[in-house]
Amino acid sequence: MADLKLPGFEDVLSAAEKISGHAVKTPLLKCEDLSEKLSAEIYVKPECLQRVGAFKFRGAFNRLCRLNEEERKRGVVAYSSGNHAQGVACSAKLLGIDATIVMPDDSPKMKLENTSNYGAKVITYDRDKENREELANKIANDTGAIVVPSFEDFYIIAGQGTVALEAVQQAEDRGVKLDIFMSPVGGGGLISGCALAIKALSPQTDIYGVEPEGFNDVQRSIENGKIECNPTNSGSICDAILTPYPGEMTLHIMSNNLKGVLTVSDEEVLKAMKYAWEKLKLVVEPGASVALAALLSNKLDVSGKKICLVLSGGNVDEENYIKALSI
Amino acid sequence: MADLKLPGFEDVLSAAEKISGHAVKTPLLKCEDLSEKLSAEIYVKPECLQRVGAFKFRGAFNRLCRLNEEERKRGVVAYSSGNHAQGVACSAKLLGIDATIVMPDDSPKMKLENTSNYGAKVITYDRDKENREELANKIANDTGAIVVPSFEDFYIIAGQGTVALEAVQQAEDRGVKLDIFMSPVGGGGLISGCALAIKALSPQTDIYGVEPEGFNDVQRSIENGKIECNPTNSGSICDAILTPYPGEMTLHIMSNNLKGVLTVSDEEVLKAMKYAWEKLKLVVEPGASVALAALLSNKLDVSGKKICLVLSGGNVDEENYIKALSI
Repeated sequence: MADLKLPGFEDVLSAAEKISGHAVKTPLLKCEDLSEKLSAEIYVKPECLQRVGAFKFRGAFNRLCRLNEEERKRGVVAYSSGNHAQGVACSAKLLGIDATIVMPDDSPKMKLENTSNYGAKVITYDRDKENREELANKIANDTGAIVVPSFEDFYIIAGQGTVALEAVQQAEDRGVKLDIFMSPVGGGGLISGCALAIKALSPQTDIYGVEPEGFNDVQRSIENGKIECNPTNSGSICDAILTPYPGEMTLHIMSNNLKGVLTVSDEEVLKAMKYAWEKLKLVVEPGASVALAALLSNKLDVSGKKICLVLSGGNVDEENYIKALSI
Repeated sequence: MADLKLPGFEDVLSAAEKISGHAVKTPLLKCEDLSEKLSAEIYVKPECLQRVGAFKFRGAFNRLCRLNEEERKRGVVAYSSGNHAQGVACSAKLLGIDATIVMPDDSPKMKLENTSNYGAKVITYDRDKENREELANKIANDTGAIVVPSFEDFYIIAGQGTVALEAVQQAEDRGVKLDIFMSPVGGGGLISGCALAIKALSPQTDIYGVEPEGFNDVQRSIENGKIECNPTNSGSICDAILTPYPGEMTLHIMSNNLKGVLTVSDEEVLKAMKYAWEKLKLVVEPGASVALAALLSNKLDVSGKKICLVLSGGNVDEENYIKALSI
């Protein structure tokens, strides 16, 4: 741990400056129906409205815009189940950088297509049989391209933190002091970055992560004080957050700042997706719905509390979406 | 016409004050994909994110909060295909007023349920055989309740105008001067109110309304200089804007301020709903998608232009939504 250079609040502020004018400043929306249902004050930060349809653009753009001229010429390579892929591909396009993205062959069709449409070269792999990091590193070695990790990176973490930076400021603008901040957790990039902003601006706010049942690597890693892996890499509809294990940096930040980690089932996720469709009029993908799912299925007593939850993305195929609407 | 008291820009400003803190100030979102596709700069004003899932809350709240104590005690009655119904029911609940709503029996299930859930008494009628105004007037006569029209009303029009008031200000905050403003048209309440704000703040902006094919009563009314009716009251999926004919006030304002009225087919509407799902991550109902449908199907040359279009609501049943996703 001693040699890890962790980002701090000032790096989140710097990221906010860099992404300004490129990323969407997503609104903070009050959810009247859920607030009434849970006798609480519930706000959502809809990152499905973000450029590329997910918060991942923030970190990716913040990372790529730090590359110098020589590095930009070498191009970038990333591995991702789909949202980081689009974030890197879109940022690379905006900055005139060549991008190669390594994606599981069972990624949602929409994510594969969008990544290609941003002009990136897409290479697919078998989620259960191949190691995506090895694949990406091989490409980097062969071509000289720079690897852009999906979460375990100083600038990526700082960039994702702008979600909470905005949320806390938007809550304050409405005179609201948040008691609880909840966010989906895959590798932990989003919630780690958010923790940096929250602990600086709103230290009274408790931070909760939410994972899919059976893929609670972060919950167990925090509990056991070391990086724990998920037993498998597939088997939940929450494709965006089926990361095999957290990073050293993200685990360090999460261990120091999270109040707890909750888990939800695929069925609870489908119900949350339908709820977001019906009551929020927002298209939210499975992995991005887990925090909402946790609230809707009463995993946490939030009565009387002021809560912000992140709906982290909206890139979902028709098939899974119709499945949610038909629940 | 001489005795019509029409609202002006100052009434839109007054409405904005009244609804502040109750209505959602919906964001202005840039649509990157569509902008690229049409070589234009396209922004959407997503009123599906408004309280009750449609812009109608703005006008209804502005109308109801003007009632004095004695009037509030008498209660209100409204007729609506569903969004005005919810707007009135929710506003009445917030203000402690009894509400009775007359709705077509083929209204989307979601609209019927939500209206009841806000505590209003719902009375259904046959869209093709009964006259909703007569029904509402009878209830008003029998009970003393005050009729709240869905568009032909000074305060309703002024309230809906806050959509454009916000949009023009939000565009200006980004340094954008709008060339074109587009909105769905049913009875004309939304676009009339918006015209008052636009002509005051942004007189260079051309205003276009969009109707469903076969229900172009406003297009023909403007052309012929008198109120024209639709031949039928059903037969399009755009339930929210199948209004039989425009009002005197709204037609007067529209005739003086609209650059044109376009029409779109149901199939074009379904494609627009799917586009909003895929690219904007917004749930938009059929009638609320017509302006987007007009752009997507090239009904207007917008190349090089800066455009704001209103996505006026998101209250749609699963069945029609799945139909759109399956197109």
